[in-house]
Amino acid sequence: MSIDDLRVDGNRLRKSLERMAEIGATPGGGVQRLALSDEDKAARDLFVSWLKEFDLAVTIDQMGNIFGRRAGQRDDLSPVLSGSHVDSQPKGGRFDGILGVMSMLEVMRTLHDHGVKTERPVSIVDWTNEEGSRFAPAMVSSGVWAGALELQWAYNRTDINGKRQGDELERIGYKGEVPCKHTPVHAYYEVHIEQGPVLEREQKVIGAPKGILCLHWYDIYLEGEANQVGPTPMEGRHDALCAAAEMILKVNELPAKMGGNMVATVGEIQNEPNSRNIIPDKVHFTVDIRSWDDDLALRAWGDLRKGFEAIAAERGCPIRIEETWRVAHSPFDERLVGQVMETAESLGYPALRMVSGAGHDASYANQVCPTCMIFVPSIGGRSHVEVEDTTWEHCEAGANVLLHGVLKSAAEV
Amino acid sequence: MSIDDLRVDGNRLRKSLERMAEIGATPGGGVQRLALSDEDKAARDLFVSWLKEFDLAVTIDQMGNIFGRRAGQRDDLSPVLSGSHVDSQPKGGRFDGILGVMSMLEVMRTLHDHGVKTERPVSIVDWTNEEGSRFAPAMVSSGVWAGALELQWAYNRTDINGKRQGDELERIGYKGEVPCKHTPVHAYYEVHIEQGPVLEREQKVIGAPKGILCLHWYDIYLEGEANQVGPTPMEGRHDALCAAAEMILKVNELPAKMGGNMVATVGEIQNEPNSRNIIPDKVHFTVDIRSWDDDLALRAWGDLRKGFEAIAAERGCPIRIEETWRVAHSPFDERLVGQVMETAESLGYPALRMVSGAGHDASYANQVCPTCMIFVPSIGGRSHVEVEDTTWEHCEAGANVLLHGVLKSAAEV
Repeated sequence: MSIDDLRVDGNRLRKSLERMAEIGATPGGGVQRLALSDEDKAARDLFVSWLKEFDLAVTIDQMGNIFGRRAGQRDDLSPVLSGSHVDSQPKGGRFDGILGVMSMLEVMRTLHDHGVKTERPVSIVDWTNEEGSRFAPAMVSSGVWAGALELQWAYNRTDINGKRQGDELERIGYKGEVPCKHTPVHAYYEVHIEQGPVLEREQKVIGAPKGILCLHWYDIYLEGEANQVGPTPMEGRHDALCAAAEMILKVNELPAKMGGNMVATVGEIQNEPNSRNIIPDKVHFTVDIRSWDDDLALRAWGDLRKGFEAIAAERGCPIRIEETWRVAHSPFDERLVGQVMETAESLGYPALRMVSGAGHDASYANQVCPTCMIFVPSIGGRSHVEVEDTTWEHCEAGANVLLHGVLKSAAEV
Repeated sequence: MSIDDLRVDGNRLRKSLERMAEIGATPGGGVQRLALSDEDKAARDLFVSWLKEFDLAVTIDQMGNIFGRRAGQRDDLSPVLSGSHVDSQPKGGRFDGILGVMSMLEVMRTLHDHGVKTERPVSIVDWTNEEGSRFAPAMVSSGVWAGALELQWAYNRTDINGKRQGDELERIGYKGEVPCKHTPVHAYYEVHIEQGPVLEREQKVIGAPKGILCLHWYDIYLEGEANQVGPTPMEGRHDALCAAAEMILKVNELPAKMGGNMVATVGEIQNEPNSRNIIPDKVHFTVDIRSWDDDLALRAWGDLRKGFEAIAAERGCPIRIEETWRVAHSPFDERLVGQVMETAESLGYPALRMVSGAGHDASYANQVCPTCMIFVPSIGGRSHVEVEDTTWEHCEAGANVLLHGVLKSAAEV
């Protein structure tokens, strides 16, 4: 059999995913595997047991990232690396993260079954705490690995109950001794569900994101004047929630106003005293702006900020704005992205060059080595919810594209 | 001295209020005396000890309402009753409720000091749990007394920790044995802070509300579609928070649209999953509409409801509406209201006929006997907040109007 005819075992991939979906299964059909929880540990234990079924060198680093390395013919060369994460959102789905880990596992098993000898070593990785739902921020362990975040700082992040990330790593037995620090990597691949509706709408099977959108986070704090609602005339009120409502609509209208190519969202709001008969006097809400065009996002924010200040002044509600976080857009390796497109099409999968709106561990990998991602369609564009779904055929397609991408990269000497 | 020259002791009233403000004092200058808390008990104990300093018959009923009765010359006649409540909001002020109780106490002390013999008996009352902040609903004990609410139902109301109102009454030693049921009352007076800015703006000292506005409460539930914000284009989103924001502004604009004479407020909002990078898929908010004109309020709601349904349809966010509570406007006794106006003016206090936007124990008293209220100005219109304030001169003025109102009513045989 020619190497070009090699394919993953789609049925085995499905079984791996179904077995993983039992760990932390929720009544609504999703999973809850918060980082460093007992469910995360169970998924890791299963994953490690699978890695140990064949000839992989398994290592666990100081952040609990799990690597499985398959030797190459030229074992001194830097490896081709691929993986994602086994942790999930509090009410997450059965594909986000785990699909990337199980796809690479299936690729490794396929290489093993067919006795394929690659020039370069090939490695699989499960990154600790990609979601950031329990311990903020997200993607923390690929961040430490890439040198963008500090190990001790990451250890000291606490969950809502005050538990330290470092202590919880130790508790579940995944605080390894290998330094969490990148060594040379020839290429990084990550298979992931799209988490959006574009592939489905365009009837494509594979997405090749050219990179990840910029991400700007803002926190807005408004003050009003609390009073009993009944005796307080409308005129002269300072209602912080009304000011916030106007601003929320401004955020929603921003992308159209700026001519598209961006998304802008208010996901979170706190209202005080939040009593039905008292005028709100303290409101906090968040703004999330993403675009491929960093300048457009900044200009949009400038426009929005002016609008906010005008609303605040008009309603007599003092405003405080925090510019919480800004990450520039992150273009992936052009050559690898093109290769994903070609590989998909040569395998007969209609493919689409697109962008990734969400952050991934690939963002940090992209800081230290040539990186690309392979997207498969999300049914209805749903993700971070229990009904998140992707067909088994599309999962298999993603793994086949990964297989041939990895083979190509591993042959480069 | 002619009875017409009788005045309360403003200094003693101030001292009573200052002493009460020590119980549950908050760092921000307000008080926290939640119903049936240890602070409520301490305030009750002090109040009862003051009642026992002179010739009052003190009784405590099954809802913990405390009555102090001063005999009349014609002790078989129904009494003149006045009071309010000693409980407070979680971060309430030093005047809401307690001013009405201390004003009547000051009136009783004045009658005692001057050996005034009234024809009718005169009674003071502290109503249990007027605020409803710990155990909903508000004004529950005057409601049971008036026969509008059931005793056992009231006992079974629980606080956020699951404690029963009946058990907490017992715990603090104020579950009395006297039936909580109204007997004939000749007239009910209640001194209260205005809780609005009207008296201050009009430079009046006394307000004589002609009654209490109607009160309509609605609960709105919206559904959207949760998705990761980054990969989900603006087009095709179903953002429940954006739908709510549009509706909140519609509520705010409603009184002007209907031609005034009403207030409309959204005080409370819950947003889910309330995560900065997930599109909100569940929003609940409240609507509070008040007017003197019940029909206007109903027409306004009809208009609002249509607007809500149109927004929900346009944004693809299914809406569920609960019509939670409706209380018709409640006109006080015309003769008593007129008498408050005359009494105030004869004492040299500029007075204003107005309406009460807030509910009071007087609302329930009004169902069973001729009722009126005496308002004094709230500085800046502020109430239900720690900075709630009223000048000592205005407190004294309110008590003097109460004194002469009570004297007039008690002389009616």
